[in-house]
Amino acid sequence: MSETFMNDYRQKIDDCLKNLLPDAATYPPEIHQAMRYSLFAGGKRLRPILCLSAVKACGDDVVKALPASCALEAIHTYSLIHDDLPGMDNDDYRRGKPTNHKVFGEGLAILAGDGLLTLAFEWLSDLAEKEYYPAEQIVKVIKRLAFASGVLGMVGGQSADLLAENKTPDENVLRYIHSHKTGALISASVEIGGLLANANEQEMTALRIYGEHVGLAYQITDDILDIIGDADKIGKPIGSDLKNHKATFPALFGINQSQEIAREAVLKALAALENLSGATEELRYLAQSLVEREA
Amino acid sequence: MSETFMNDYRQKIDDCLKNLLPDAATYPPEIHQAMRYSLFAGGKRLRPILCLSAVKACGDDVVKALPASCALEAIHTYSLIHDDLPGMDNDDYRRGKPTNHKVFGEGLAILAGDGLLTLAFEWLSDLAEKEYYPAEQIVKVIKRLAFASGVLGMVGGQSADLLAENKTPDENVLRYIHSHKTGALISASVEIGGLLANANEQEMTALRIYGEHVGLAYQITDDILDIIGDADKIGKPIGSDLKNHKATFPALFGINQSQEIAREAVLKALAALENLSGATEELRYLAQSLVEREA
Repeated sequence: MSETFMNDYRQKIDDCLKNLLPDAATYPPEIHQAMRYSLFAGGKRLRPILCLSAVKACGDDVVKALPASCALEAIHTYSLIHDDLPGMDNDDYRRGKPTNHKVFGEGLAILAGDGLLTLAFEWLSDLAEKEYYPAEQIVKVIKRLAFASGVLGMVGGQSADLLAENKTPDENVLRYIHSHKTGALISASVEIGGLLANANEQEMTALRIYGEHVGLAYQITDDILDIIGDADKIGKPIGSDLKNHKATFPALFGINQSQEIAREAVLKALAALENLSGATEELRYLAQSLVEREA
Repeated sequence: MSETFMNDYRQKIDDCLKNLLPDAATYPPEIHQAMRYSLFAGGKRLRPILCLSAVKACGDDVVKALPASCALEAIHTYSLIHDDLPGMDNDDYRRGKPTNHKVFGEGLAILAGDGLLTLAFEWLSDLAEKEYYPAEQIVKVIKRLAFASGVLGMVGGQSADLLAENKTPDENVLRYIHSHKTGALISASVEIGGLLANANEQEMTALRIYGEHVGLAYQITDDILDIIGDADKIGKPIGSDLKNHKATFPALFGINQSQEIAREAVLKALAALENLSGATEELRYLAQSLVEREA
């Protein structure tokens, strides 16, 4: 197993996103440019890839699932645009490029996020209308996505993260933030793959356990990479300013113990895959690569 | 016909909203308070009422349609919260109360909007899961709502409005802004009533024509009331500073001609109701009251 399957998926996802988006010249073109700018700003497409690999692990058609997987990327992208706004994290750069509001202004950035969030649900409802999937299945996918990305999921996690700023992180708050802000959508991406493949109850449980642990491992390694990256940038020893960071695992447990927690989570994710009958190599590769990735 | 039916609906809608929202003490409570603050800030509930009256005009059960009508109010409220943000209209007050970001800060206001937008789709998908409506019908409602409130509807209109600021309004742009920023969701509210009532094609066409014209009349009278209100406040003759306003019908056509356009739109809306077989008194009253309302 190598990265090849991920590059193949990425190409398919990008093509599908371009097909699903309204024409770039649609009036007023500025909002369509703003949405496209962030959708095609070099995202890794982790969430749609997890969804497609879950579809495969349940033995169903990956190509048919592409538009639904794109809805996950639209939600993820909207959350990044809003997260970067001056009223939230106030970030000027993301993945080395100016953030959406830096290019298009705050107003259009807010609206580009709103537009992508809404498009996700339009794309999903369209799949039932076009009879790609039975309406019952699509309604379940919509419910799972809305729950995971809403106020009891991602938006709740973003709120807790915002409220925790400049406070000493507490373990319960930290676990809430991680499992909701990032974990909820990663976990839902895997489960939505199962829903699209019409997975049985046992398969859905396996996917849920896999998704939860992969989500946790992802966020912890992300936090660690952030600290290593920051330390590199400012020439300080790694970990010397851990306490200045927002609520993170490394700030609470230190880097070594955090890495250990992430490794254990990956082992639990891999164990859950034993209960799936389809081709699980991709999900296995994705879980392992998470703790081995570099900044 | 009098206002009584509207007050009755308002009470039912408010009760239903309270039932649908997650518990107010859900962690983190601040985001739930922020959503509730704007949802219960004295909105007229025009969109859910239009939806329920359309259900009635097609002879179907109004009580069953309540949760779906609440999704329209969630979308409307989210759009107001985001519209008031410093990066958009930068308003400190709405309906005499401090705007959401003035009370909860910009970050939570952005998230409260995102949360309400997402809840709307969760509430709708839940109706099929609970078997209140067949999944096929709910998928159509979701598609109609996503389209009307998204980048080809309301968000597109908000974008055009933002981009038109401090520019001389052009009639085509003005018509685009009105039909999308406000008209799209009002029109969809009426049509979603028809979809919930499983209306036939002829009824759906009548509702669409009614909704489009009511949406136009609503926006024009809103613009006129804005100008009269502003003139009152600053002691200037009405209409003396029309050109300083954003793209509006009164700025382009003057107050008298704008009132005429609104009146004609209401007549066309009323004429469309002839094609409905159910009880259309409420829709009739709603259309007429729009051009007779006061600030």
